[in-house]
Amino acid sequence: MSPPPAESRLTPDDLREVWPVLTSEERVEAFSHLDRYSAQEFFFTLSARGKSIIILGSPEGERRLWMRLLAPDDAADVIQETDDEARSGLIDLLDETTRKEVKALLAYKEDVAGGLMSPRFSRVRPDLTVDEAISYLRLQARDGIEGIYYVYVLDVEQRLLGVLSFRDLFKSAPEKRVREIMQPEVLAVTEDQDQEEVGRLFARHKYLALPVVDGERRMKGVITADDILQAVQEEATEDIHKLGGVEALDRPYLQVGFLAMLKKRAGWLAALFIGEMLTASAMAHYEEEIARAVVLALFVPLIISSGGNSGSQAATLVIRAMALGELRLRDWWRIVRREIAVGFSLGLLLAVIGLARILAWHGLFDMYGEHYLLVATSVAASLVGVVLWGTIAGSMLPFMLRALGFDPASASTPLVATLVDVSGIVIYFSVSAVVLRGALL
Amino acid sequence: MSPPPAESRLTPDDLREVWPVLTSEERVEAFSHLDRYSAQEFFFTLSARGKSIIILGSPEGERRLWMRLLAPDDAADVIQETDDEARSGLIDLLDETTRKEVKALLAYKEDVAGGLMSPRFSRVRPDLTVDEAISYLRLQARDGIEGIYYVYVLDVEQRLLGVLSFRDLFKSAPEKRVREIMQPEVLAVTEDQDQEEVGRLFARHKYLALPVVDGERRMKGVITADDILQAVQEEATEDIHKLGGVEALDRPYLQVGFLAMLKKRAGWLAALFIGEMLTASAMAHYEEEIARAVVLALFVPLIISSGGNSGSQAATLVIRAMALGELRLRDWWRIVRREIAVGFSLGLLLAVIGLARILAWHGLFDMYGEHYLLVATSVAASLVGVVLWGTIAGSMLPFMLRALGFDPASASTPLVATLVDVSGIVIYFSVSAVVLRGALL
Repeated sequence: MSPPPAESRLTPDDLREVWPVLTSEERVEAFSHLDRYSAQEFFFTLSARGKSIIILGSPEGERRLWMRLLAPDDAADVIQETDDEARSGLIDLLDETTRKEVKALLAYKEDVAGGLMSPRFSRVRPDLTVDEAISYLRLQARDGIEGIYYVYVLDVEQRLLGVLSFRDLFKSAPEKRVREIMQPEVLAVTEDQDQEEVGRLFARHKYLALPVVDGERRMKGVITADDILQAVQEEATEDIHKLGGVEALDRPYLQVGFLAMLKKRAGWLAALFIGEMLTASAMAHYEEEIARAVVLALFVPLIISSGGNSGSQAATLVIRAMALGELRLRDWWRIVRREIAVGFSLGLLLAVIGLARILAWHGLFDMYGEHYLLVATSVAASLVGVVLWGTIAGSMLPFMLRALGFDPASASTPLVATLVDVSGIVIYFSVSAVVLRGALL
Repeated sequence: MSPPPAESRLTPDDLREVWPVLTSEERVEAFSHLDRYSAQEFFFTLSARGKSIIILGSPEGERRLWMRLLAPDDAADVIQETDDEARSGLIDLLDETTRKEVKALLAYKEDVAGGLMSPRFSRVRPDLTVDEAISYLRLQARDGIEGIYYVYVLDVEQRLLGVLSFRDLFKSAPEKRVREIMQPEVLAVTEDQDQEEVGRLFARHKYLALPVVDGERRMKGVITADDILQAVQEEATEDIHKLGGVEALDRPYLQVGFLAMLKKRAGWLAALFIGEMLTASAMAHYEEEIARAVVLALFVPLIISSGGNSGSQAATLVIRAMALGELRLRDWWRIVRREIAVGFSLGLLLAVIGLARILAWHGLFDMYGEHYLLVATSVAASLVGVVLWGTIAGSMLPFMLRALGFDPASASTPLVATLVDVSGIVIYFSVSAVVLRGALL
């Protein structure tokens, strides 16, 4: 049989293009048409879930081959994506050392340091000489240490004593002892540290790798910046989705099925709708006022949306600052003082614009009736109150959620807008009741 | 003079705590109280801006010392933070090699590959043996190569021929040639590639470092995952701020002054307010209808906010998928078809809840008058239309912005909500005009 003509050969780029819209079966089928070299290259760029689909869809013999190509942390990620049934079958395909390592990794939650680390790192004893250390590392490299960036110095009980960069090792005199040239103060993370925190450490210190230790400072593995980069991307995506009032999708948009997509959105949307029903009750409460002065109703959307928008701004800024570790719970007082000043100023700005608009439309189109000045005053005063209130609510809601143990990012912009809408109606009609008493009301 | 008692010594942690609220002068003053070791440690965790404040605030002699501690890419970042006046003074403090490197780096924009790379990387010629290469790298390490993770193989004209990991080098037989063990197909980025794209490459391939080349594939520098991690964090922050309807703050929340903060928020807020004024015009258009059937006004906030919320969800999902490179412009048709189905289903869901609520309140509290069934029908039908429209608008606006060359993240949730509010009013009153004709209207 001759190979198909060159034009009709499937390239990894072609496959990447259509990948999101293929079913699992189609993916396996298409993947099998790649040539050997492209298949490997393509395989390694797949997400853990994508890898699991290919592996489970491959014939018995190939399955082992793919599993054995994976580093232990990647193998653990792939296994985590499969259901319980397939799991032990896949673990059995690994060689004995990797199997042990993978089982240890599977014991960690996915979003903590232990779940991100690789158990394979380069280690030396403190009393080797530089030349001995380099030879010893050459041996370790042959045995399958994945990446070597830093060399960790451990005592006999695997406790972390210090760290050496390759540069330190390479530039030192050959007869020096490791102990003399190592850096003894090593920043390490613990196994159960949250990945968001680990990401902040990496971003702040610009490290390429950080050691992971247990409670007794025994070294367990190493996290590299490339692992944490994926984690940081995922955390940001999760926060963005929550901020937009969607449950975090845990895979790419195009790979979420119709029903799953509906579920991710319907919950919050229905909850917000039910909350927003309070606006109908609030409006009903002022039904008589509206009947007497219909002109009041005209400005309801304008006023409540201004509260929602200013609240969205405040919530967004506070939530992102919290995620980046710039704000802690006890900063709330500093923030509230500042947001009051900002909210008041922004409210004044909108009040001036609103006032100008009503006066202009009165002059130009003779709108809003004889009491237009009082209406303009009501609108302007309400705007100051609503924007001020929106800003305070938007900035404090994330603090409250965090204090109660929830994710501050759940204070989505639609949630803040909904909360502020109801109070906006109450503020507006209360202000109007005072300003327009005896005139329109 | 004896040193102050231990308790009163300022620690880096103390300083980090108060840092955000200090003025530049106070920062310099406080920093000078750290002991030598802590000062260095603290200095390296500062942002480029923080470093520039310390350096400019230090006496002449120390200034040189701090500048020379910086790697060329960090020095370039620091210099970029200072004004033109201080710039050349700082450049002059560097040693000659670094000065050249920094000047080359300063020619790049901050958010492209060239602006992120370090010009110091380990290089070998293809015909060295493994043993020769290792010795040569030990020499390079002494001369100040910053980090060594990969070794790049270059020809005499500095063109990139291949790459070696340290592991490859260490595990190979000493007499092999570099050419025989190098990987010849190297993924490289070009100098002017956008940092967002580079970040996606890193996250997808899980690389620790990528070479940067010019148009002739001459190697210019190397970007490491730790550099790109900061860039990815910054890009996500920028997108989140824009999504929340704020101009991106380019420094931490607490470090933005009051007026600057006001400026970042006032622009968008005022623009949205002016856009939202159209709701007042739309409502005025239906003033007579409202006067005849006040009950209609009660549901305006509920209906328009539902459109805004569903639009926020759709916009958020599409914008993030675009930022992650999951969606391209030409995918718009696939998305619009899908979002129509999702929007219609979500609209039906809210319609059912809304219908139930009106019927229940009529039964329980005898509200909404004799035509409550027709009112309920208007509300329910409008909800389907408004949610469907909000979903389509929210998902398509980012595509339109990108097609016009704008950042899709500018389709902030408040902007989508504002756009949808006006159309929501029109949809609601048009539907009601049909349903309630002859009864209430």
